[in-house]
Amino acid sequence: MLLNCDLGESFGAWTMGLDEQAMAVIDCANIACGFHGGDPDIIAKTLELAKQHSVTIGAHPSYPDLQGFGRRSMKLSPQTLKNTLHYQIAALDGMAQCQGLSVSYVKPHGALYNDMMADESILQSVIQTIAHYPKPLKLMILATAKQEEHQNLANEYGVNLMFEAFADRLYTDKGLLTPRSQPNAVHGKPALMAQVKQLVEQGSVTTNTGKQLPLKADTLCVHGDNEASIALVKEISILLTRT
Amino acid sequence: MLLNCDLGESFGAWTMGLDEQAMAVIDCANIACGFHGGDPDIIAKTLELAKQHSVTIGAHPSYPDLQGFGRRSMKLSPQTLKNTLHYQIAALDGMAQCQGLSVSYVKPHGALYNDMMADESILQSVIQTIAHYPKPLKLMILATAKQEEHQNLANEYGVNLMFEAFADRLYTDKGLLTPRSQPNAVHGKPALMAQVKQLVEQGSVTTNTGKQLPLKADTLCVHGDNEASIALVKEISILLTRT
Amino acid sequence: MLLNCDLGESFGAWTMGLDEQAMAVIDCANIACGFHGGDPDIIAKTLELAKQHSVTIGAHPSYPDLQGFGRRSMKLSPQTLKNTLHYQIAALDGMAQCQGLSVSYVKPHGALYNDMMADESILQSVIQTIAHYPKPLKLMILATAKQEEHQNLANEYGVNLMFEAFADRLYTDKGLLTPRSQPNAVHGKPALMAQVKQLVEQGSVTTNTGKQLPLKADTLCVHGDNEASIALVKEISILLTRT
Amino acid sequence: MLLNCDLGESFGAWTMGLDEQAMAVIDCANIACGFHGGDPDIIAKTLELAKQHSVTIGAHPSYPDLQGFGRRSMKLSPQTLKNTLHYQIAALDGMAQCQGLSVSYVKPHGALYNDMMADESILQSVIQTIAHYPKPLKLMILATAKQEEHQNLANEYGVNLMFEAFADRLYTDKGLLTPRSQPNAVHGKPALMAQVKQLVEQGSVTTNTGKQLPLKADTLCVHGDNEASIALVKEISILLTRT
Repeated sequence: MLLNCDLGESFGAWTMGLDEQAMAVIDCANIACGFHGGDPDIIAKTLELAKQHSVTIGAHPSYPDLQGFGRRSMKLSPQTLKNTLHYQIAALDGMAQCQGLSVSYVKPHGALYNDMMADESILQSVIQTIAHYPKPLKLMILATAKQEEHQNLANEYGVNLMFEAFADRLYTDKGLLTPRSQPNAVHGKPALMAQVKQLVEQGSVTTNTGKQLPLKADTLCVHGDNEASIALVKEISILLTRT
Repeated sequence: MLLNCDLGESFGAWTMGLDEQAMAVIDCANIACGFHGGDPDIIAKTLELAKQHSVTIGAHPSYPDLQGFGRRSMKLSPQTLKNTLHYQIAALDGMAQCQGLSVSYVKPHGALYNDMMADESILQSVIQTIAHYPKPLKLMILATAKQEEHQNLANEYGVNLMFEAFADRLYTDKGLLTPRSQPNAVHGKPALMAQVKQLVEQGSVTTNTGKQLPLKADTLCVHGDNEASIALVKEISILLTRT
Repeated sequence: MLLNCDLGESFGAWTMGLDEQAMAVIDCANIACGFHGGDPDIIAKTLELAKQHSVTIGAHPSYPDLQGFGRRSMKLSPQTLKNTLHYQIAALDGMAQCQGLSVSYVKPHGALYNDMMADESILQSVIQTIAHYPKPLKLMILATAKQEEHQNLANEYGVNLMFEAFADRLYTDKGLLTPRSQPNAVHGKPALMAQVKQLVEQGSVTTNTGKQLPLKADTLCVHGDNEASIALVKEISILLTRT
Repeated sequence: MLLNCDLGESFGAWTMGLDEQAMAVIDCANIACGFHGGDPDIIAKTLELAKQHSVTIGAHPSYPDLQGFGRRSMKLSPQTLKNTLHYQIAALDGMAQCQGLSVSYVKPHGALYNDMMADESILQSVIQTIAHYPKPLKLMILATAKQEEHQNLANEYGVNLMFEAFADRLYTDKGLLTPRSQPNAVHGKPALMAQVKQLVEQGSVTTNTGKQLPLKADTLCVHGDNEASIALVKEISILLTRT
């Protein structure tokens, strides 16, 4: 199970996340493309780090909303969404090529990610956008109870999916994340490590109703915000090696 | 002699230029990349027009300054300038590839163009940036009295130049454009047509001191701002066919 | 019945609307504050025009979305909405004071205007925001079948409303505008002039079901986009003087 | 001698500086206005902190350059500079008034500050801009060997100046700050504390040539970047109380 992490989300003079440390302990870097975070300098630097640690590169495109960090839903037409994504993927991929690298996958960011998981027409737009891109790219989405359905939709367009799971979040029966506003939404370390173990060994999670929900996850979303989260990634990494 | 024109400089709800009409009468489109004008939708639409009229596509990158339309000089480090240009070129080229097209050359915009012609270290940075890009791209710069020198500089980095001349502007003895603030800086139609004829037939312009300055121009910069400028481009086009 | 018009919506090098001509024929200028259009130079110039023609000044604040021209709905928390509006109103009012002028009212722009008319909790946030501003400002909203209810809500916070009507749009029975996507949504000139006459003389509009809906409008929204719309404003102005 | 500090320079999801801690130990807060840092939410929060600690509020306006954090020089016309500053001052002052507060002074940020100190015509533009503002505002500039000359210039326009000095920077004989690129440009703590003591007790600094340069400083610029700088501000504060 690969570890993926959002990176390159600094902007101009503002730093976010411990990218250098995070890059050393993950497999896949979701790199911001300049629309919610990241700028040409940050992107170049993040790509260098990815190169140094042989980390797989994903584009992490967003709604155009720097001030809101891409966390505010915006209604874009399918055409505008397509162009907005193509622009960001292209910018990152061209800059990757400048360093002899290449973008392998796309993981939409923030509100766009949530909208895509909540509204199948948006997911379809994203899949079509990726199918339309002139090089093959995988799409990383949340593994939910609907993952087969989503796989079928992607197959129609010839797009490969990467399913991700979350270690630190309590799942609903639909395989969605319990909103952070609810109690117990975020696991403490023991529950988190248990969830990782269960995902790897049994291919399932225990939901907020106590149900065993089967989830086939290719990758686990981890965070590089601070020292504590880096330490946690290391522990998860060790657990994965052992299991 | 090819006709090049700045296009795709609308932004969001704001329209600039008669792009549809201009695209039909030019050879090379310098397409804004989103930093002084253009956005993902505008870029996609402009590329479609270019495709429809089989026009050669150039990236028209800028300092990051939407409000100032890239007309205000900004001091960027060589590294930041490189990343800023790579990002823009990559975004445009990737979007072009989505339509089966490809960027052929780069023409810096506005203040960056002026800075590059005024300061050889900036020109060198731009040339290095293009040399460093993972596909071959030509660089379009102003044909001046120093064009051989500039060609030699570009040769060092293996970059091909396209030299452009202006039809409507009075030249100085150095082959620079007389600032618009000065009288006679902008030619009326007869002088303009005469300058084109002289450029084509004699490979020279008559400067503000009456000197015949040799200029080898590959392309002529024309404008698509309004009906009058479109009409003028058509006349220039006819003149070029006849000469 | 006062004529109000959106103005100052140019941005940087991009021009929108015939502001000079429009300002000469209206009573109230809804001036963009820089978040969907307008920038410090445009604002200063628009205020000068307003001063010259003794036009009443309104702030025309928006969601922060230049590229989308404030036409895309964004979910802002009430707190963020309040701060976003205060910032824009303050910027415009301070610049107005630099010219001896003063902002009298607020008319939200685009998606924010629509959201406010569609969701009472957003209307309430806007009213509270204006009540909280350190000088008295009126709020301009759409006159609908709910206008008494809206008036009562505003009264709770001590905010005065200005109700606006549209000359060129077909109304629904709820007093909302028929979406532009529907046939007959936009009146031709005869129907438009008839609607103005009916609004002034009978205080009502004829809806898309043929019903006479009473609407008390303080002001009519007009447009200054082009020569045709300016000509129309002049005709409406003459009609209003006569009736 | 008052302690002034740049604050409110976070933006959206990005945090900069320990504003809460800094606000508790300073006298004057230079608050970013949204053009290099700060946004409506950050501004509102920073004003609340200033209110809580009864700190004097200054506007800290900038060139419009979020990505460059206002550190890149931009050539604005005097008219554009004036409008750009008025907009920012007005936005902050109106938001301050929403909390019963008021902006007292203006300290230009970053490249604008440097340009103003390096080019008298820009300083004059800034002074005129402040004189033109509809309420009296002081202007905070660097105390240099030219401070009398600057005072005379400001007097012509009826603008009061606040002169600031730096504790941690080595001065040149002209009273300018030695560029950070040079060795010894930034004092260690002993030299820093000695410089503060000398400024207070003798009204002078020892320059990089060993000269005693008289400087009358009304305020000292301190930093709230991290725990170490906060600790330093506290020590400076104690030193100032004792001397």
